[in-house]
Amino acid sequence: MGCLDEGNGDIENGVSIGCGEVGFEEEAKPDIAAIEEAVKVLLLGLGEDVNREGLRKTPLRVAKAFREGTRGYRQKVKDIVEGALFPEAGLENNRIGHAGGAGGLVIVRDLDLYSYCESCLLPFQIKCHVGYVPSGQRVVGLSKLSRVADVFAKRLQEPQRLADEVCSALYQGIKPAGVALVLQCTHIHFPDIESIFLESSQQAWLKTLVLSGSGIFDDRKADVWSDFFCLLKFRGIEIEKVHLRGSSDQWWCPSLSALSAKVSSKTVPVNPAMVTAVSSILKSLGEDSLRKELTGTPGRFVKWMMNFQSIDMDVKLNGSLSGDTFDPDREVNFKDRQIHCELNLPFWSQCEHHILPFHGVVHIGYFISEGFDPIAKSLVQSIVHFYGFKLQVQERLTRQIAETIAPLLLGGHVIVVVEASHTCMISRGIEKFGSSTATIAVLGHFSTDLAAKAMFFQSVASATTSRVQ
Amino acid sequence: MGCLDEGNGDIENGVSIGCGEVGFEEEAKPDIAAIEEAVKVLLLGLGEDVNREGLRKTPLRVAKAFREGTRGYRQKVKDIVEGALFPEAGLENNRIGHAGGAGGLVIVRDLDLYSYCESCLLPFQIKCHVGYVPSGQRVVGLSKLSRVADVFAKRLQEPQRLADEVCSALYQGIKPAGVALVLQCTHIHFPDIESIFLESSQQAWLKTLVLSGSGIFDDRKADVWSDFFCLLKFRGIEIEKVHLRGSSDQWWCPSLSALSAKVSSKTVPVNPAMVTAVSSILKSLGEDSLRKELTGTPGRFVKWMMNFQSIDMDVKLNGSLSGDTFDPDREVNFKDRQIHCELNLPFWSQCEHHILPFHGVVHIGYFISEGFDPIAKSLVQSIVHFYGFKLQVQERLTRQIAETIAPLLLGGHVIVVVEASHTCMISRGIEKFGSSTATIAVLGHFSTDLAAKAMFFQSVASATTSRVQ
Repeated sequence: MGCLDEGNGDIENGVSIGCGEVGFEEEAKPDIAAIEEAVKVLLLGLGEDVNREGLRKTPLRVAKAFREGTRGYRQKVKDIVEGALFPEAGLENNRIGHAGGAGGLVIVRDLDLYSYCESCLLPFQIKCHVGYVPSGQRVVGLSKLSRVADVFAKRLQEPQRLADEVCSALYQGIKPAGVALVLQCTHIHFPDIESIFLESSQQAWLKTLVLSGSGIFDDRKADVWSDFFCLLKFRGIEIEKVHLRGSSDQWWCPSLSALSAKVSSKTVPVNPAMVTAVSSILKSLGEDSLRKELTGTPGRFVKWMMNFQSIDMDVKLNGSLSGDTFDPDREVNFKDRQIHCELNLPFWSQCEHHILPFHGVVHIGYFISEGFDPIAKSLVQSIVHFYGFKLQVQERLTRQIAETIAPLLLGGHVIVVVEASHTCMISRGIEKFGSSTATIAVLGHFSTDLAAKAMFFQSVASATTSRVQ
Repeated sequence: MGCLDEGNGDIENGVSIGCGEVGFEEEAKPDIAAIEEAVKVLLLGLGEDVNREGLRKTPLRVAKAFREGTRGYRQKVKDIVEGALFPEAGLENNRIGHAGGAGGLVIVRDLDLYSYCESCLLPFQIKCHVGYVPSGQRVVGLSKLSRVADVFAKRLQEPQRLADEVCSALYQGIKPAGVALVLQCTHIHFPDIESIFLESSQQAWLKTLVLSGSGIFDDRKADVWSDFFCLLKFRGIEIEKVHLRGSSDQWWCPSLSALSAKVSSKTVPVNPAMVTAVSSILKSLGEDSLRKELTGTPGRFVKWMMNFQSIDMDVKLNGSLSGDTFDPDREVNFKDRQIHCELNLPFWSQCEHHILPFHGVVHIGYFISEGFDPIAKSLVQSIVHFYGFKLQVQERLTRQIAETIAPLLLGGHVIVVVEASHTCMISRGIEKFGSSTATIAVLGHFSTDLAAKAMFFQSVASATTSRVQ
């Protein structure tokens, strides 16, 4: 599936772009059915009831999302670029310099894309900046730069290969003086249920930046690269300041990192039926599951999924909750009540409708009387993690956290707000980059005492202005 | 096409979501052909050659973009929401409060959408925040809130009606305790070629914010609205600070404003064949061209298009260029050379591939010797406007500005950077909200003197950090 095929291949299925949950090609049906079966094996392996309402259509949704997320395998760059090359004059003959269809650099900045990581099968986000220097007195329609990048993004990818494939395909398709790609890629760092208690500060995202250039961009020191970087700087993108990938950090996917390997060596062996199921998904997507980058992928995906086993809290947290003390008999004096807030507690969870991560923060408020200690933050964070590491929906997560904390408090007056980014909102048809979901649960006094609720909201607002997105 | 039909209507074409330039339904072909013919009439009315390479496929592209931008007429909310309602428990019986599937507010923030303005047929951008309060122990899949909003956005719209229709459709579809919508809408303010010289500071965008609520959100003073606003505040959206639409500014589309009416009263009468052509486009989109909000739309669209007539500079600028003095014989001493920059000159233009606006800023740098005056800024701005008000591509605009300024300078050493947002990058299949295109033309010394180019880029970077997007 190298990009060299792209420019010369025959038209297979045309540039059929499915959109989300509808419009799939007739010939995809057997592949979708095969993926559905494999997803059922995975759900059973987690100890789930595949017939419960929330999961009943999950296999179909996962199958469609995977097919759509890899539709690039069924698209041809040639079909996209052909018919979108326009004659465009360069400079008048007597002038020195570059402009228009002969040498005038064109870049399109800040294209939002997503792709699937070939190492772990999770989606990752991409800010794509693509440019080219026209030659031969012709230019390409601007949207085609985005469409071609998307063909390669919609495959199982790795950032550098993605950049190289897009670059090479555009170079062959447009035949310009040069093409350049800058990709800023962001991969969710999904800690293992065990490692999350080993390391106090977990980084939620891993970022990398990769470059690729063809033609006059072949040489990374060429002046035309500095023009490209200057045009990015006008949008606040400082290449010098971002982490350029070096040979020392060859793994960008957290599932390949040393810590992940260390932790997983302690875990139980993975269920072979689940691994076989993931291999069959790769085949149904049109991938070669024997390709060397993919050989460990099914095992890694299954290991990661096992974080969401349907088991009870004590087993899952391995005794982490013990040792925390709380006294249910301590009194709350409502006259001197204060609101204690635990803000921006991170959580990681898995959407049960799409088997895709969602991630964010939890804000919790409750009443406390002067002189009494609040619930230990570590206990609150453990509760948040416990309900995160399940197949979930955000509404339920919010309610469960509130209902678990309430009995620890006299009267059970608690308010919980969960704010999350859902991978399923970007890595399928709707592609709503930057959207964010908030849910609330209010118990006891908070449901009637507007002043108390307002005080809590004010604390959250103050704490979020300094929060980095 | 009221939203009351949406919940109860029969399935017409299912939820067929076309994506850009492919995938159109077979039955759309006659409508697309009719729009193509109408667009040819419009192009001829502008004095354009409909067979020139850049315009040859424009009628087809415009037809497909219009069909896709109004695909909401052919979609049913019922098809989207059905099958995406999930049972979800509320609070345990003995608790007071709201959570989960019984009263726990859910909002999805920052959904990027676009719609077409029913008054002028230009696309406008929407930041949509949508929320609901579940009841009956069930919740809806989060993406459905976005999909339903999109059904109504993909029609000819006006912000308040859009909000009301989405609200009403979700209320009927989900049957929750309440639904609320907050839309932040942004409409390009495209000045008339004449008015642009009357007013020195042209506002590029008009913004409005509208609300709509059903059920427990019916009352704007309900506490649940303040919860909604608090959750928006966590994302930096301050409802109090944005311009809430009142009765005093009933027109949000600039084509309906008083100034626009004043200017247009002076202009020549519009070509009736072009007006008829636009009316036929409305019919082909499935709209009722006699609906009262649409009666003036064809005339307004044609008036606006006439800004892009293919005529020469003197006629177009109506003598505005006269009165500027420049002396081509003045000497430039390259030893003492300084770079003079004109930065962030606004321009408005029209993409000839899609008949859609693109808008942005031009940065110009050239050498000047001490003691000599730069070219009058008004002349430079007039040149920028002249080349803007045409059917254009950004690459050509950049070259033409450079080639027109060069002869005003000894040696013709000039560098031009154009930065633009293209409506065609958001209001069609690729929907790349936030993308931005930059193009360069370099003439004479700037093509070889890297230090000079770097100085110019530095000036632009300094000036753009303070520029508000």
